[in-house]
Order: sequence, then C-alpha cells, then structure tokens
Amino acid sequence: MRFRSHMDLALAEARAAAMRGEVPVGAVVVAPGGSVVASAGNRTRELCDPTAHAEILALRAACRAAGSERLPDHDLYVTLEPCAMCATALSFARISRLYYGAADPKSGGVAAGARVFAHPQCHHVPEIYDGLSAREAETLLRDFFVARRLPGGDAP
Amino acid sequence: MRFRSHMDLALAEARAAAMRGEVPVGAVVVAPGGSVVASAGNRTRELCDPTAHAEILALRAACRAAGSERLPDHDLYVTLEPCAMCATALSFARISRLYYGAADPKSGGVAAGARVFAHPQCHHVPEIYDGLSAREAETLLRDFFVARRLPGGDAP
Repeated sequence: MRFRSHMDLALAEARAAAMRGEVPVGAVVVAPGGSVVASAGNRTRELCDPTAHAEILALRAACRAAGSERLPDHDLYVTLEPCAMCATALSFARISRLYYGAADPKSGGVAAGARVFAHPQCHHVPEIYDGLSAREAETLLRDFFVARRLPGGDAP
Repeated sequence: MRFRSHMDLALAEARAAAMRGEVPVGAVVVAPGGSVVASAGNRTRELCDPTAHAEILALRAACRAAGSERLPDHDLYVTLEPCAMCATALSFARISRLYYGAADPKSGGVAAGARVFAHPQCHHVPEIYDGLSAREAETLLRDFFVARRLPGGDAP
C-alpha cells in the first residue's frame, strides 16, 4: 500500500536521525501524484535550531521546491504525533492529509496538549490518520532514550 | 525604558516587512545583558516558507549565533501575539520573557486559540507581557491590509 511505503521512508529518516544522536523522528511530504517531494529527520542538535523538527525541515524543503508557502493536496507522513509548532506549520502549508505513527501524550499537539486543530481559529485542518507503524516508531524512540540513560550511552 | 526601545526595533522590522509586501510583524531577541542578538521581520512570501514568521527567524538566528538550541534568560519582543507555532518554538528555546504588542484573536496562540502555554504539557512557560506599543503594531497591520484591498493596492 502506498501509505505504508511512505511511512517506511519516514521511519528510515527517524533511524538516520538516531544515528546522528538526534531524537528519532522522520517525516515525508508527498505530492498529489504520490511522489515524495521532501523527507527529513530531526536535526535540532546538529543545526542548533529548536525548530528543526523533521516535519518543519520537510515542509520547508517541499515549499522551497514548489516555490510556494502552500502545498495544497500534499500529504505529510511523520513517525510521531506532531507537536503544536509542527501541527500549526502544516496547517499554514495547507497540508491535505496528516499520517502519523506513535502518539505523543507528553509533547504532542494534535490529540494531546494544545490540540491545535480543535480550535475554531485554526484556518485549515487536514484529514488525520494516526497509529500507522506506531509500534516501530515507538520502539525507535524507546531504544534511543534507553541507550542515552545507560552507562556508556550517548547521554547529553 | 529598555523594553520600549526593543519594541521600537521590532516595530521597525515590522515596517520593513510591510515594504517587502509581507504581513508587518517584527521580532527581536535580547540577551541577558540587554543586547539585541537577533531581529527579523516576517518573510514567508519572499522565502516561500510558511514557518518564516518574524519570531521563528529571530529565534533561529539567535540560536545559530549562540551555538545552542536553547536561549535561557533571553527575552523575545514581537509586535503581534505569537501564533501557536511561534509560541511553541519559543517554549522550546526556553525564552525567559515574552513581550508582545497587538492581540491577535484570529490567529494568536497565546491568549487566543490553542493557548499553547496554558497546557500542563508545555515544558517551559515564559513570563508574558502583552499590549506593549499595541496601537502602533495594530495600525501597521490595519494599514497594510487596507492598502491591499484598495484598487491599485498590493493585493495578493
């Protein structure tokens, strides 16, 4: 299925982020025809940029490629529930469908916390599909944080 | 007063944004000693980047200069109430105090809408001071949008 391979690419971006010592989250932007126009993993540490979440990097790259600050009829796949920053950004970009993996009750902003799309002020709300490849995404995150807590792990 | 001159600089950034055809919002990041470490105006159209709000650009520049994704004890001045994206970003950056001008009941995310800082999931909440130079900031925005609606105005 198409969505499965796009989420697989997002998971590959998440794994690559972990290898760089970044929180393993990956995102993919898909054009209306189904082609991938951008993919990214989290790079907040590498870039010294608190906004460099996977979704933001992928959105910015896709917008740059499209020459537009809006991506109508594009979809975004991400391995973890977006935070309020990323959820708001994908609303600004007019992303059509959001597919995400693991839930994030601690820092998410879609089903948890600020629940960005639940307010009437939100000018554009994508269709939302959650739980895709959630177990793989959760395992990646859990393994990453366990390794950082172990002696000899890549603790901050 | 110090905050007044910092907000004046944010207003100057907002005016420069209007001259570029961008929604006139400006932001300034101030280091603990009171020096300005970054300032920016909105550039979403120029950069084809829906995340290029004044606050995000200023935060990213300040973080780059500091070599860190966190800016403890730094303040951010912005002419308009931050949206949910920007409010979340300045929480990630650990901004100490947020000073803003005009309220934004339509798209704001601090006192309106998602009210990002009001949720227990928000890991860092700055001190918030609103209404600074609010009239100047509102006038800039109103004039900008009126001009775009007039025949011969810079309509999108």
